[in-house]
Amino acid sequence: MIVLINPNATAAMTQAMARVAQDHLPRHTVEGWTSTDGPAAIQGPEDGALAVPPLLSLVQKANERGAQAILIGCFDDTGLSQARAIADCPVIGIGQAGYQVAAAVGRRFSVVTTLAVSVPVLEANITAYGLDPHLARVRASGVPVLQVETAQHAILDEIHAAQREDDIDTVVLGCGGMTTLVDTAQTQTGLRVIDGVRAAASIAAAVA
Amino acid sequence: MIVLINPNATAAMTQAMARVAQDHLPRHTVEGWTSTDGPAAIQGPEDGALAVPPLLSLVQKANERGAQAILIGCFDDTGLSQARAIADCPVIGIGQAGYQVAAAVGRRFSVVTTLAVSVPVLEANITAYGLDPHLARVRASGVPVLQVETAQHAILDEIHAAQREDDIDTVVLGCGGMTTLVDTAQTQTGLRVIDGVRAAASIAAAVA
Amino acid sequence: MIVLINPNATAAMTQAMARVAQDHLPRHTVEGWTSTDGPAAIQGPEDGALAVPPLLSLVQKANERGAQAILIGCFDDTGLSQARAIADCPVIGIGQAGYQVAAAVGRRFSVVTTLAVSVPVLEANITAYGLDPHLARVRASGVPVLQVETAQHAILDEIHAAQREDDIDTVVLGCGGMTTLVDTAQTQTGLRVIDGVRAAASIAAAVA
Amino acid sequence: MIVLINPNATAAMTQAMARVAQDHLPRHTVEGWTSTDGPAAIQGPEDGALAVPPLLSLVQKANERGAQAILIGCFDDTGLSQARAIADCPVIGIGQAGYQVAAAVGRRFSVVTTLAVSVPVLEANITAYGLDPHLARVRASGVPVLQVETAQHAILDEIHAAQREDDIDTVVLGCGGMTTLVDTAQTQTGLRVIDGVRAAASIAAAVA
Amino acid sequence: MIVLINPNATAAMTQAMARVAQDHLPRHTVEGWTSTDGPAAIQGPEDGALAVPPLLSLVQKANERGAQAILIGCFDDTGLSQARAIADCPVIGIGQAGYQVAAAVGRRFSVVTTLAVSVPVLEANITAYGLDPHLARVRASGVPVLQVETAQHAILDEIHAAQREDDIDTVVLGCGGMTTLVDTAQTQTGLRVIDGVRAAASIAAAVA
Amino acid sequence: MIVLINPNATAAMTQAMARVAQDHLPRHTVEGWTSTDGPAAIQGPEDGALAVPPLLSLVQKANERGAQAILIGCFDDTGLSQARAIADCPVIGIGQAGYQVAAAVGRRFSVVTTLAVSVPVLEANITAYGLDPHLARVRASGVPVLQVETAQHAILDEIHAAQREDDIDTVVLGCGGMTTLVDTAQTQTGLRVIDGVRAAASIAAAVA
Repeated sequence: MIVLINPNATAAMTQAMARVAQDHLPRHTVEGWTSTDGPAAIQGPEDGALAVPPLLSLVQKANERGAQAILIGCFDDTGLSQARAIADCPVIGIGQAGYQVAAAVGRRFSVVTTLAVSVPVLEANITAYGLDPHLARVRASGVPVLQVETAQHAILDEIHAAQREDDIDTVVLGCGGMTTLVDTAQTQTGLRVIDGVRAAASIAAAVA
Repeated sequence: MIVLINPNATAAMTQAMARVAQDHLPRHTVEGWTSTDGPAAIQGPEDGALAVPPLLSLVQKANERGAQAILIGCFDDTGLSQARAIADCPVIGIGQAGYQVAAAVGRRFSVVTTLAVSVPVLEANITAYGLDPHLARVRASGVPVLQVETAQHAILDEIHAAQREDDIDTVVLGCGGMTTLVDTAQTQTGLRVIDGVRAAASIAAAVA
Repeated sequence: MIVLINPNATAAMTQAMARVAQDHLPRHTVEGWTSTDGPAAIQGPEDGALAVPPLLSLVQKANERGAQAILIGCFDDTGLSQARAIADCPVIGIGQAGYQVAAAVGRRFSVVTTLAVSVPVLEANITAYGLDPHLARVRASGVPVLQVETAQHAILDEIHAAQREDDIDTVVLGCGGMTTLVDTAQTQTGLRVIDGVRAAASIAAAVA
Repeated sequence: MIVLINPNATAAMTQAMARVAQDHLPRHTVEGWTSTDGPAAIQGPEDGALAVPPLLSLVQKANERGAQAILIGCFDDTGLSQARAIADCPVIGIGQAGYQVAAAVGRRFSVVTTLAVSVPVLEANITAYGLDPHLARVRASGVPVLQVETAQHAILDEIHAAQREDDIDTVVLGCGGMTTLVDTAQTQTGLRVIDGVRAAASIAAAVA
Repeated sequence: MIVLINPNATAAMTQAMARVAQDHLPRHTVEGWTSTDGPAAIQGPEDGALAVPPLLSLVQKANERGAQAILIGCFDDTGLSQARAIADCPVIGIGQAGYQVAAAVGRRFSVVTTLAVSVPVLEANITAYGLDPHLARVRASGVPVLQVETAQHAILDEIHAAQREDDIDTVVLGCGGMTTLVDTAQTQTGLRVIDGVRAAASIAAAVA
Repeated sequence: MIVLINPNATAAMTQAMARVAQDHLPRHTVEGWTSTDGPAAIQGPEDGALAVPPLLSLVQKANERGAQAILIGCFDDTGLSQARAIADCPVIGIGQAGYQVAAAVGRRFSVVTTLAVSVPVLEANITAYGLDPHLARVRASGVPVLQVETAQHAILDEIHAAQREDDIDTVVLGCGGMTTLVDTAQTQTGLRVIDGVRAAASIAAAVA
């Protein structure tokens, strides 16, 4: 069993992410768990900090139930290092997975995320993972997490802007809720479009 | 179609690697191509340099035939940046893929490779990819590439030594020919054992 | 008001640290708060992760009460970045404060901490703060956190070993409970001995 | 006794800095020494180089008189590494102290200094100290060192510009003569305002 | 004998570079070899990749003939690490030599090269050599490699722009064909103007 | 005119270094100047600091006399950045020049210097120049600066030890006085042996 934990309380996002992960892990059973005590959406470092305590409870529970891998379904990778300290199995963050895959397939990537408040969080993570030489720019689309599905137009506009201005061959979608946007973005731009959920599921497939 | 190119001339290694890659890419057709003008085995930087010209010819051919992804089946990642300059699709090296996956799932890894002559090549690559903060040590088992299948005992001994001495939770198998060793190594040690071929195939699954 | 929060549940440590901090902040009132829901001692990353949720509750409370600065009294700096995301005032970790002061006054320092399980945690922090060029070595004395006061001999032995072997001019005491050891260590060795609690209090004095 | 050495020949600056340092070191006697053979002000690398010889003479003298700590009162940290090689006690530069304190309390800082000629000097120092991940920008206010006290308006304007444009929570005052500006700057902007003299004195309090 | 290999097929460039190198190596015989199977000019990573196979053949030949040093006369340093793996003597790239000399004599340099397609190649090299702290900017003049001699005006314009905008004391000419431009550029700007061919020849003089 | 300034007071070393430099700068006149107010030998950071004031006086004098380049003939590169701030022409340190040339021609180098007290000085310089990825180890031969010419045996022993133990292809001679040892060391070991004086003179030839 592989558990995808969504640290925010929005069950629809959990389901969308778990569906994609299951699709990329045909030999495993993927369960999607929602952190019902977390914030409705994680936007910026304060939300991230408040999401940690209930997330760690779920990580402990998944570990006790014998999960073979745990995916943290928040692009901020909030609580990731602490979750790793608790769990016996691999814990994979969709942010880190997305960046590592981007670094392994492309020359230079930009990230298109939701609100400006998340930009410094993602920048600091990319630096901490040692991947900033591959980074062109982290861009905010201005679309809040909970409107990602309905405001795809604004996100695609920002991806087009990244393509025009950033000298990149790869774009990383900077929010778990953008997992449904991959095909459209790829078709419209010809860029390599990396989705953290697919990336994390694929990395789990390589190690679980 | 996804093409795994083995830059050395040993067809048995090509087949073993292509089989594992196909297994991790159930929705794609994987072809294994052998660089028949390459050296029989790539051990050290001189072999790597001589392998580059015939490898680039095959990359060009795979690109012309419309490959959706190209996997370079040599743990030295020899010619990888040049292959990327030629191809339109993602080009994934089994060395880099193995390190990126190791960095995404574990705290600290060692690499167990074949001969001592390859150690500085792999160390330089890991530094160039920005992943040296995750690296404990690159270790040579003393087993030549073409004896990897028959001398598994010596390789497992080195993996045990890494486990005892290197303060790691993850080991990366440092040769494409070690792809058949994953299960044994994982069972015997309890470490996370990363195989570059599985890692590269999984990353291809995330992007192709 | 300046609040020193001890993320572990041992009130005697809180008092010892708060007394030293008050002494270095003569113009402010220092309160020492104990995280009674935290582990009795924080030794290694698992303890650190479990200490985060109750620590963040106390940070929120200190922030609401208008603290001018918050000192996190655990040398692991556990939860530090998340605490900063929540608080409006400066949040200072005794680990980071100790390293920054050591970097500002000496050429090269070693850290002497409690158990081996904490060594990789401290090493990772020092790297993340960009201070590893100043670091000689993080050393474990083998003394558990709760015996630091009664087993001073073993800690002093390790400090002497660092002086003999590490080519340093400065040693950082790697546990909040070692705050009472500073004078003895300095007198016996002639090294510059940095205590994280004094360092954090002094930095608070510079900014609060 | 703690000695604050001003490497430039302007005695009024020495007195202002020594007064602030004394205030933050209530248990020590602070003496302010002026390098009467130094340039009137240190603006750019050429002034800095010419200031080194007479500065080192004073360092030697302070060392012979048994100083417990030496503060170098020039934000360029000119001659700092050489002074450390000569002195037995800690030698603390007001530039480095300011940056280390800023790194320990804030997320990201800008520096506001005097003339453009000093900007590359300060940038190089921050990089050498390993603190550039915390740096937003080094900004020149255009105010010469000897007019800092009378042209506070232009400096405050530049601090406001940093607040608007640099995505920071902390500003470091980039000249010893700005030590009288801290309260005004903090009140007007709400930023954390770090003064190198206070920072150096506080670090001395932690170690002397 | 010292061999300068031009990886592109344009013999006039080989002769110009060999003449300059001979001039700086008065005690050695310099031979200029043209890679007649290489592209007419190397502009961007694709040309660079295609230039590698015939270049490595010539490196092998020079090595067999007992060359005391080999200079690779392409500013992209294409195939440099692979050439080093094959040759017994020092192999010096005109790009790397130019940057190392610039780092040894100046504070900060910009590079003025030919087309925009080469900019990311040069940037990646400078980072890989550890010299990016010295780099201000890599600038494209828009002049193709084969028109460098006839369109000197546009290149000089870009050098003037670098002088005005980049806060530099040194400019590196980013193409082997610019070797004839050194004196004019130096006279017109007063900058230190570094030519990779002179730099490589001088380094060869220090070691051969 | 090119001036080689020896920051120590030993005129015989000045002459030996100036002779080698003149030999590598056939088109220029090389003058060797001795800093008669400097220490007899520079061994460790304290000597280095005391050497700076008289060195800077000579740099100023050389600058006034219109030197086209200034070579600082001390492997510690003491006062180098300050000398650059004063001079209008390129100022080249024999330490930095030696490392840059080593980085440009070899894979990995060790440095063999005089006494252990100089090792941390050289290590810090190599890190500051960004060249530590190329460094294997800085080794002390135990031979004081003023006995380098008479105790060549002990230095050659240390070079042999570096060859056996350090996995290097290049050794840098870590003292200006070792300039007469190059040929012997190269013949006996087959390593590439880099002498800072030759390196600095060659770099001057490329730019003056």
